[in-house]
Amino acid sequence: MIAEILTIGDELLRGSRVDTNAAFVARKLDEIGIEVRYKSTAADDMDRLEEAIGLALRRADIIITTGGLGPTDDDITKKAICKVFKRNLIFHENILTELENRFAARGLKMPSINQNQALLPQGATFLANRTGSALGIVIDEHGKFFCSMPGVPAEMETMTVEELIPQLRERSGDRVIVRHLLRTVGVPESVLAEKFRSGLKLPEGVSLAYLPAYGKVDLAIKGTGTVREEVRAAVSQTAGTIRTLAGDAVFTEDDRELEAVIGDMLVEKGLTLAVAESCTGGLLGGRITRVPGSSRYFLGGVIAYANDIKVGFLKVPTGTLDSFGAVSAETAEAMAAGVRQLTGASIGVAVTGVAGPDGGTEDKPVGMVFIGLATDKETLSRKLLLGGDREIVRERTVLAALDMVRRAVAQL
Amino acid sequence: MIAEILTIGDELLRGSRVDTNAAFVARKLDEIGIEVRYKSTAADDMDRLEEAIGLALRRADIIITTGGLGPTDDDITKKAICKVFKRNLIFHENILTELENRFAARGLKMPSINQNQALLPQGATFLANRTGSALGIVIDEHGKFFCSMPGVPAEMETMTVEELIPQLRERSGDRVIVRHLLRTVGVPESVLAEKFRSGLKLPEGVSLAYLPAYGKVDLAIKGTGTVREEVRAAVSQTAGTIRTLAGDAVFTEDDRELEAVIGDMLVEKGLTLAVAESCTGGLLGGRITRVPGSSRYFLGGVIAYANDIKVGFLKVPTGTLDSFGAVSAETAEAMAAGVRQLTGASIGVAVTGVAGPDGGTEDKPVGMVFIGLATDKETLSRKLLLGGDREIVRERTVLAALDMVRRAVAQL
Repeated sequence: MIAEILTIGDELLRGSRVDTNAAFVARKLDEIGIEVRYKSTAADDMDRLEEAIGLALRRADIIITTGGLGPTDDDITKKAICKVFKRNLIFHENILTELENRFAARGLKMPSINQNQALLPQGATFLANRTGSALGIVIDEHGKFFCSMPGVPAEMETMTVEELIPQLRERSGDRVIVRHLLRTVGVPESVLAEKFRSGLKLPEGVSLAYLPAYGKVDLAIKGTGTVREEVRAAVSQTAGTIRTLAGDAVFTEDDRELEAVIGDMLVEKGLTLAVAESCTGGLLGGRITRVPGSSRYFLGGVIAYANDIKVGFLKVPTGTLDSFGAVSAETAEAMAAGVRQLTGASIGVAVTGVAGPDGGTEDKPVGMVFIGLATDKETLSRKLLLGGDREIVRERTVLAALDMVRRAVAQL
Repeated sequence: MIAEILTIGDELLRGSRVDTNAAFVARKLDEIGIEVRYKSTAADDMDRLEEAIGLALRRADIIITTGGLGPTDDDITKKAICKVFKRNLIFHENILTELENRFAARGLKMPSINQNQALLPQGATFLANRTGSALGIVIDEHGKFFCSMPGVPAEMETMTVEELIPQLRERSGDRVIVRHLLRTVGVPESVLAEKFRSGLKLPEGVSLAYLPAYGKVDLAIKGTGTVREEVRAAVSQTAGTIRTLAGDAVFTEDDRELEAVIGDMLVEKGLTLAVAESCTGGLLGGRITRVPGSSRYFLGGVIAYANDIKVGFLKVPTGTLDSFGAVSAETAEAMAAGVRQLTGASIGVAVTGVAGPDGGTEDKPVGMVFIGLATDKETLSRKLLLGGDREIVRERTVLAALDMVRRAVAQL
């Protein structure tokens, strides 16, 4: 069963929107063992859409499209489906009634433009949309499964999980695929590759992919074969070798993010955490609190963007700022100790740096960042020289700060 | 000149990575008037890659690929190019020397795996890579422009801007395209569409696309034609009508983000801003400080995740927390007034809410959020009921808080 994901929208071809939908659908199909072999994008244009749907129907068994099902005039996916499959649109009274009721429940009158949503291609079944007005459309005929979903991510995601995947689960084949992920932080891809080159020999049927992203490298092992036990053993042996070679760069072997791994470590050890942020402006706290239930160990902290706040809130001595500057090891350490003291957290972590694009000097160029960390045992800091634009520097800073917390918690 | 963007990597087809590269390249091509008609993704697999490159060469004039140029074994783009174009790989001594020098400058010995990077297909020219080791590859023959770039976003982005676009600029045609963007916040797509349905008639050659995202809707007007003055007039007339109909939902008519618009307003009026964040954990401050130079108006604030910090730092009366709870209008207002007082900012903005997935009650369900705002004139709050998962609720909260600041600053 070969699948193609076709995302629809001028904004995707112009690049004014990043295509997160394709990745979401791909991940969900992959999870149930369906191979996504093709991913493509088509314009909101009838000729282009017919061409793309036609190509997909020729080369794939399962075709999933997203986008172009809204009520406005630039949404033409439904018309294109009718042309390609040679169908008429049929009006469904019950769909209209349900939509009207939904608006009424919120005390609203349904905009009449939404009446379009009650029209479906003849012979199609639909996928319910709990959060929006555009239904999904399924045509399942002659060995081809064709499905169109709306492009609004929240609507599409719920529809995929609750409606589409249950229908597709039965269709997946019986080739055995075993995956194992090792997530690493702090060691560049080429350094890892060099280690594995001498020390790692991949068994037959096993592949290793490097997925680098800003200081993190995911190592994705994939084994394929026909006998589950054999494939599993080969993958497990490979994972063992990588674990030995990569050492403590590996922060997890499941799909948890670094912040979730740290959260679990903190909970286990009964520790709490607070942050003091300058150049990241809150991103570090924002990242830590992505984890549901992070209130068990994260107390909060101070966004000390202005120096007055570093001094007034965090009790960084003005002498330290004057002698070493806001971007210095001394200030980072004082911020970390300050926020720990102030909040009563077990661990205080602080960041200060030059995110750019302006504000760099010869001594302290753009990308220079200090991370401070304070526990009941010690106060220390780390200096980084990070490349990239403002957002990349800030992203890498968040990651490095999290990794420093991870290593500190492991010692406590 | 029709372009195709082909992104390469198993991780994209499995959905473990979102394809941001395609969007970046698309945007840059669009800016110089090149129509991206096709976007596709291929696996790290020789057969698939040959198939995808072959198809792209048949249907497009300009083909840009990203990914698969790294030094590791799963990077096979270069081999696929050699197969499709029937070339050998040629070793370039000067490229190797430069790479070795670059490692040496950082006090490192080049991992020998990087020697691969000095191999290029016969007859190809290369694009320099300032930040990484993989060069871009260009084959420009028989009216087809083929270019492969590395997949690491920071490397690919610099290479696109500095090397690729200058080469392509000369090739773009002379069809006139005029674009105008109006960015709105706080009004749903269907409500905007309903307003425009009765009040807006699009002139010939002018189209309007709705690009909704979590409470923001971008309205993209595009005019095409042959006489620049005529196209411009038609687009301008359309923008005028939309401006009237959408009112103060329009926050800008250039490509600035909401946080940048607010920043410019604050600078102009000489005002400063501070934040107090509970459920967003720092994301609001993180968003505000995305803007280079935000230190001119953003002082910082408090991440008050734990109630102790709401009381201890922000001076929220324990009576308020006891009577109304942490998620309440009263607490939001006290937090906003508290952070304003504490930092001396002109405006304090605070958020508190239930981001989920746990912690909701019947009275205060997941998605209930209060935003408080304090100025020297008044302290007020707004209650929101937001849909979506934890990250969507937090994202929408950040947006709603920014919009509340925008409306307040406009009055000051």
